[in-house]
Amino acid sequence: MKDKKQLDLSLYLVTDRKLAGQRELVEVVQKAVKGGVSVVQLREKELCAREFYELGIRIKELLPPDVPLLIDDRLDLALAIGADGLHLGQRDLPVEIARKLLGPLAIIGLSVENLNQLQAAKQLPVDYLAISPVFSTPTKTDTGPAWGLDGLRAARKLTDLPLVAIGGINERNAAAALEAGADGVAVVSAICAAPDPEEAARQLKKIILEARKRMKSKQIVYKG
Amino acid sequence: MKDKKQLDLSLYLVTDRKLAGQRELVEVVQKAVKGGVSVVQLREKELCAREFYELGIRIKELLPPDVPLLIDDRLDLALAIGADGLHLGQRDLPVEIARKLLGPLAIIGLSVENLNQLQAAKQLPVDYLAISPVFSTPTKTDTGPAWGLDGLRAARKLTDLPLVAIGGINERNAAAALEAGADGVAVVSAICAAPDPEEAARQLKKIILEARKRMKSKQIVYKG
Repeated sequence: MKDKKQLDLSLYLVTDRKLAGQRELVEVVQKAVKGGVSVVQLREKELCAREFYELGIRIKELLPPDVPLLIDDRLDLALAIGADGLHLGQRDLPVEIARKLLGPLAIIGLSVENLNQLQAAKQLPVDYLAISPVFSTPTKTDTGPAWGLDGLRAARKLTDLPLVAIGGINERNAAAALEAGADGVAVVSAICAAPDPEEAARQLKKIILEARKRMKSKQIVYKG
Repeated sequence: MKDKKQLDLSLYLVTDRKLAGQRELVEVVQKAVKGGVSVVQLREKELCAREFYELGIRIKELLPPDVPLLIDDRLDLALAIGADGLHLGQRDLPVEIARKLLGPLAIIGLSVENLNQLQAAKQLPVDYLAISPVFSTPTKTDTGPAWGLDGLRAARKLTDLPLVAIGGINERNAAAALEAGADGVAVVSAICAAPDPEEAARQLKKIILEARKRMKSKQIVYKG
């Protein structure tokens, strides 16, 4: 982590090997990035560290320099892989400890599941927050109740930190998440399980850019 | 990890919260150390990182300075807790990467499950090897076939690295493991599941010291 990478949360891919099905995850990520993914988070809860490490090295090699690689939970793997940062949940290492171990240049994100956690997170050395889950989702079952779009709007009013909406995001609701105040959307199955991950990413990116254009023309500005 | 701690493998405790039953693991470890445990390895595969971290901090605080704390698998938790080192399995991070990230002062151990792995380990920057499992054991089921005492003797002939025998070790076979060439024995259930962990540790320690005395008088020397 020699430089802190620019963080564009627009289209944030969270990996899921199982959803990739018969396809190699590396191939799915490669296609998704070609389609416009702007951040990749490697989240592999069931891989042993050795396999996670080897997979991470392969994915890091294929990512263009402007697409940061974040690792979920395992700070050791973030270090070993030479990733750009770490994504933490509420049950992972405390953010302050992670920041101390990774230094100021690492990107550190944190999932928040309710307004109390969001309020607490405002004091933490994080680069962005994931509003999780915005909609209910079958791909992550250990989370609290969904924020919904109203919850996302409430979150937006409480912090200037960049926010990525995660949970049940797809082509039909991505624009609404941005309009409710998210800086970007994180997807798992909408890309990993798509028959054509590149095309799925491209469609989502198009929706995101169009939503931004609409918001700009209506002068919807949530930040600051 | 400011200083590399002296490593006395004599009686090496590997923790298992489930075997501790109703008792707090912290309390079991405290008693075991009072009884003579010389190394503690925290192995908690099912705890989330936050809980592992908090447990590790508490255990580190209670250990006397001459009893090193090692963390199983999670190098990030070893760093966060400020442990003395890391114990790796064959499916964990590669030893070279761990050494690079932890530096020369950390104690790094590696489990080897067969002679090929032992041969390969001789080239690695490790401080000790765990011969795993020496006997078959119900507390760890993802290992290869047991080495047996003959296997341990064969291992001893192939390396000068300190060896700790793990797997099914108890009061009845601990002396035999030392006589077959182990520098110490690692136990899980023989202490964690004992009605009186302190007394269990004391008995094991007594057996170890008596075996060493017998070996010395018979001039059984395996090292070098």
